[in-house]
Amino acid sequence: MTFSAQLMRAVEPQWQAMLAHPFLRQTADGTLPAGRFETWLRQDYLFVREDIGFIGCLLARSPVHLRRMLGEFIPALHQEMALFESMARELGVSLEGVEAAPVCHAYNMFLLATVHTRSFVESFTVLYGSEKAYCDSWTRVKKLQTRQSPYQRFIDHWSSDAFAAWVNQLAQALDSLAGRCGADEVKCLEDLLRLTARYEYWFWDMALTGAGWPA
Amino acid sequence: MTFSAQLMRAVEPQWQAMLAHPFLRQTADGTLPAGRFETWLRQDYLFVREDIGFIGCLLARSPVHLRRMLGEFIPALHQEMALFESMARELGVSLEGVEAAPVCHAYNMFLLATVHTRSFVESFTVLYGSEKAYCDSWTRVKKLQTRQSPYQRFIDHWSSDAFAAWVNQLAQALDSLAGRCGADEVKCLEDLLRLTARYEYWFWDMALTGAGWPA
Amino acid sequence: MTFSAQLMRAVEPQWQAMLAHPFLRQTADGTLPAGRFETWLRQDYLFVREDIGFIGCLLARSPVHLRRMLGEFIPALHQEMALFESMARELGVSLEGVEAAPVCHAYNMFLLATVHTRSFVESFTVLYGSEKAYCDSWTRVKKLQTRQSPYQRFIDHWSSDAFAAWVNQLAQALDSLAGRCGADEVKCLEDLLRLTARYEYWFWDMALTGAGWPA
Amino acid sequence: MTFSAQLMRAVEPQWQAMLAHPFLRQTADGTLPAGRFETWLRQDYLFVREDIGFIGCLLARSPVHLRRMLGEFIPALHQEMALFESMARELGVSLEGVEAAPVCHAYNMFLLATVHTRSFVESFTVLYGSEKAYCDSWTRVKKLQTRQSPYQRFIDHWSSDAFAAWVNQLAQALDSLAGRCGADEVKCLEDLLRLTARYEYWFWDMALTGAGWPA
Repeated sequence: MTFSAQLMRAVEPQWQAMLAHPFLRQTADGTLPAGRFETWLRQDYLFVREDIGFIGCLLARSPVHLRRMLGEFIPALHQEMALFESMARELGVSLEGVEAAPVCHAYNMFLLATVHTRSFVESFTVLYGSEKAYCDSWTRVKKLQTRQSPYQRFIDHWSSDAFAAWVNQLAQALDSLAGRCGADEVKCLEDLLRLTARYEYWFWDMALTGAGWPA
Repeated sequence: MTFSAQLMRAVEPQWQAMLAHPFLRQTADGTLPAGRFETWLRQDYLFVREDIGFIGCLLARSPVHLRRMLGEFIPALHQEMALFESMARELGVSLEGVEAAPVCHAYNMFLLATVHTRSFVESFTVLYGSEKAYCDSWTRVKKLQTRQSPYQRFIDHWSSDAFAAWVNQLAQALDSLAGRCGADEVKCLEDLLRLTARYEYWFWDMALTGAGWPA
Repeated sequence: MTFSAQLMRAVEPQWQAMLAHPFLRQTADGTLPAGRFETWLRQDYLFVREDIGFIGCLLARSPVHLRRMLGEFIPALHQEMALFESMARELGVSLEGVEAAPVCHAYNMFLLATVHTRSFVESFTVLYGSEKAYCDSWTRVKKLQTRQSPYQRFIDHWSSDAFAAWVNQLAQALDSLAGRCGADEVKCLEDLLRLTARYEYWFWDMALTGAGWPA
Repeated sequence: MTFSAQLMRAVEPQWQAMLAHPFLRQTADGTLPAGRFETWLRQDYLFVREDIGFIGCLLARSPVHLRRMLGEFIPALHQEMALFESMARELGVSLEGVEAAPVCHAYNMFLLATVHTRSFVESFTVLYGSEKAYCDSWTRVKKLQTRQSPYQRFIDHWSSDAFAAWVNQLAQALDSLAGRCGADEVKCLEDLLRLTARYEYWFWDMALTGAGWPA
């Protein structure tokens, strides 16, 4: 079993909980309450915008052999932002002046705090978790779909072979870092991967309930 | 009006919401559900432990004239941890192996991400907000009290003249930083102070409901 | 006078010293001792490689309106690395296993420490300084040239209209940040711009003398 | 052989070069040119002041079991600054408005860049190296002394049993971190320890020559 697969196994309960979140099923079968997908879209747009900074910070900590891969992910995220902007126009959703919901802010803070205070392998594990979460979640949506969705371009983007190949590339990169890790470090990686799954779950939850700041 | 007072005025709605949180009133009048104060105690212990690192990072970014004050706050936080440990023993609460609740983790991440990615004045404003929040909140509890509380040592600690003097010292230090800030920076400070009040509210909320990770 | 021009004026002595460094004149007139340009090439290759991480970290701290510009600079630096690799092959210089000279290491550390502990405007000023230094220095070489150089592609790259346009774009971006700065902050920017010119001078000096670690 | 001793063995050549630097011998036998010790004193004072920030940042990255030790080092460094101030008064040296010499700035930047971009164990290794360097260097001075020095209080401070005990405590702490490290990480630790010895050598060299910025 590869290093990355071992890490994934350790967080199986949280991963399955994330994949079983009703937001995904309701997105697939079209029963999502009105406006909820739009909430997700606007918050995830903010999330991706800040995620670019997380990748930028990873670059400065990366072993040389992974830098080009990380550097090339930045224009890829610019393209992802363009997908959001295009879908927002299509759905009549405004992306201007959106305030980050609590979990959106918290998840971005988690990424930034991690990359600044933890080892590269620890932060890279969080990156792997967040990308794999999207791959697995939207592939789940795709499988559950019975008819075309108004959000099809998002579903197709993250359930594509190209995206799966990217996530696989990250898994191999993570495997290449095993030589940096003693047993205590592996334990840290599992804890961070678990937290990543939890933040992902929480993000779906926010989208479904539309919960913002109470004051 | 001082620079710090102007900033506080901009976040008045969030500040008042925080001070009006039922956790404070119920702590004061003894109607808090069983176990809730203990939840708060265990989570806030974790929070303070990580807060020390936030102060440490502030030290590295501080203008020379504020470094000693920040450096001396680290042993003060060690003493605060000792207060938690002593109260935990008194109340029969275990502080071992506690897992950070979502908002406890998120608030710590907010502090660490802020100190690493924002200017010193911005991070210092968040420190001021978090300390003033405790001063104002526990002073509110103290005022609402009608009889002695089993948690009196906490209430007295943060509503003391000594703690108010510390918060006042922070306000003056913040005022000394006004010369670093143009108008755009002042807007950033207000946003961060507002977020601080919101995280504080959220923390009281978690204590009252005891909400942990769903998976 | 623009904000960026005012900052430049404050560091005029250090800027002129940098531009007057014999390494530039000797590169222009072909009197550089054998192997010295190669020393510079190998060290600057390492410098650029780490500089990408500096830009990545800037991204995470940037106001939204400057993020795309910074993000697009990362592939531009990848292309610059390709220029170094191509020139190294042409000149028969190996880029493998090069150890960073003291000033190369120190300058990279200066950039990374700055972006992590100073405000965005402060770090952006250092970026502006380092890019403008290359524009001005190689334009100086170009002007002093009397005949074609074996290093012509480097000279042409940084003395090109395209590169001057990029540096001008950075100047305008810096001007857009004036609203973040009070008088004390402006003083910090000048100090950092001065340090940037000094590190640049020091880098030319290392190239000319070939000085490495004494042990 | 302990983990820390193995690391030390890998950098033996650089360590011996540092200990053999003429600044130490000339400090011991009183043949240092006039003003050179004062140069060292003024620069090292700046270094220690910034070093406190490095320790503060380490705190935020530290495993829980090492936090108190690191936190308590901050007041110890405040006391060390007081020793510098007292010695400066005694020797008639002004500590006001001193500009950091190139290597003083570079060494501080190395520490700050390291703590922000490398793993905790990597940064902690640099801390260990810098403290052990002072212990070994000043113990060397003490051994070479034939008569009382005007700088005796510095010599006695870092060659004391108390300081040796502190360095030994750091070695044991480093040993406790071996479980975090795979083979690739150990290689990184050696490289960073080597760099630390080199910066220390360079610092003695600057003190001996009094070299500042050329412009």
